[in-house]
Amino acid sequence: MSEEQTKKPAVVLLSGGLDSTTTIAIAQSEGYDLHAITFRYGQRHEVELDAARAVASHFGIENHVICNIDLRTFGGSALTSDVAVPKSESADDLGDDIPVTYVPARNTIFLSFALAFAETIPASDIFIGVNALDYSGYPDCRPEYIAAYEAMANLATKASVTGQPIKIHTPLIDLTKAQIVKRGLELNVDYGLTTSCYDPNADGISCGNCDACLLRRRGFEENGIADPIAYQSTKR
Amino acid sequence: MSEEQTKKPAVVLLSGGLDSTTTIAIAQSEGYDLHAITFRYGQRHEVELDAARAVASHFGIENHVICNIDLRTFGGSALTSDVAVPKSESADDLGDDIPVTYVPARNTIFLSFALAFAETIPASDIFIGVNALDYSGYPDCRPEYIAAYEAMANLATKASVTGQPIKIHTPLIDLTKAQIVKRGLELNVDYGLTTSCYDPNADGISCGNCDACLLRRRGFEENGIADPIAYQSTKR
Repeated sequence: MSEEQTKKPAVVLLSGGLDSTTTIAIAQSEGYDLHAITFRYGQRHEVELDAARAVASHFGIENHVICNIDLRTFGGSALTSDVAVPKSESADDLGDDIPVTYVPARNTIFLSFALAFAETIPASDIFIGVNALDYSGYPDCRPEYIAAYEAMANLATKASVTGQPIKIHTPLIDLTKAQIVKRGLELNVDYGLTTSCYDPNADGISCGNCDACLLRRRGFEENGIADPIAYQSTKR
Repeated sequence: MSEEQTKKPAVVLLSGGLDSTTTIAIAQSEGYDLHAITFRYGQRHEVELDAARAVASHFGIENHVICNIDLRTFGGSALTSDVAVPKSESADDLGDDIPVTYVPARNTIFLSFALAFAETIPASDIFIGVNALDYSGYPDCRPEYIAAYEAMANLATKASVTGQPIKIHTPLIDLTKAQIVKRGLELNVDYGLTTSCYDPNADGISCGNCDACLLRRRGFEENGIADPIAYQSTKR
């Protein structure tokens, strides 16, 4: 039996961003054989999908599924509608309220597809790069939400009869963005492959001032490391 | 303010089948203003979608969303792949194991979209016509699963901060198929609009011998009432 066959299979949610890419590096370092799932959900920032493909390829993930789910059907978020993506000068300006970039039930939908994917592989482990610190305004990034999701998933699926419980792994959940970058750099993650911006221009260049850009830039700054990707604006 | 405006909004999952149609009649009898959601998920039986549109129109539901989500990406079910739909002579032959017609995480995915839809309306009530008795082999039709889903949903969404908890209503969960038909007939449901077959022919005519047809036919027989829809085979 080859080494690949002896590894435990796991599903990872891959957006092409800094968090999910770091999550892949961590999961691989723990010995999992990864199957990746990415969503085309009507987001403004489709450049994410190119980044997701590049990341999957870089990490040697052969089974990478891209699911088409059009969340624009409902609207309700700046990420999928004509509502403007808010811009700020500094990550220090970000509030604690649920932001307009919150996509209703997005992580619940994403995890549900990951759960279906896991069940067909079959795999009992799902990795998601949610983070409760920097995105404290997103209800579906908190530990209590993930715990409730896991409990539900174990009643929802064949896991309820096989005795192989579903485990939702959130290796980043307690880390600051700076700690995530630090961990990724220790694992030699090439962050030049990734993109985080909510509102890139037509060439896919990150804006530099949306919440996601500001948090990412601060994460690199706090490590004293240059972010390898380009920005339209370096002002902050 | 019109009567319509004073009604409480709710989302209902509508497949075009007997159960979801009865659920609509019950929800309307309880005074809810319904918004319906139907899924094109790669099912063999797309005639369901025509039935869903007819049902929504019949019940005066103006906001009826059809979501495209291709569950064939994963396979793993007779309803979305080339695996044969099992046929039997009698509903008495149905077993207690998870059937091959189980679609991995289907209700979890469906409820997650319903949750997103509810959040954008906004509505706090979701109706789903799951039934634990006749489909005891489906893990995602059991009361404990629904309770876990509701707990998760209340942590996942804006409900976590608004104090307006999400409620998942399952008015059919404890009823036999015969009791569901009886309740629907009391509410004057026109079951001629509905379709239940997992494997209809090209003209949309129900096979008569898949699990769904057998359970439906027995439900009408036990009420001593003729099922108003046609079947390819009336043998059982």
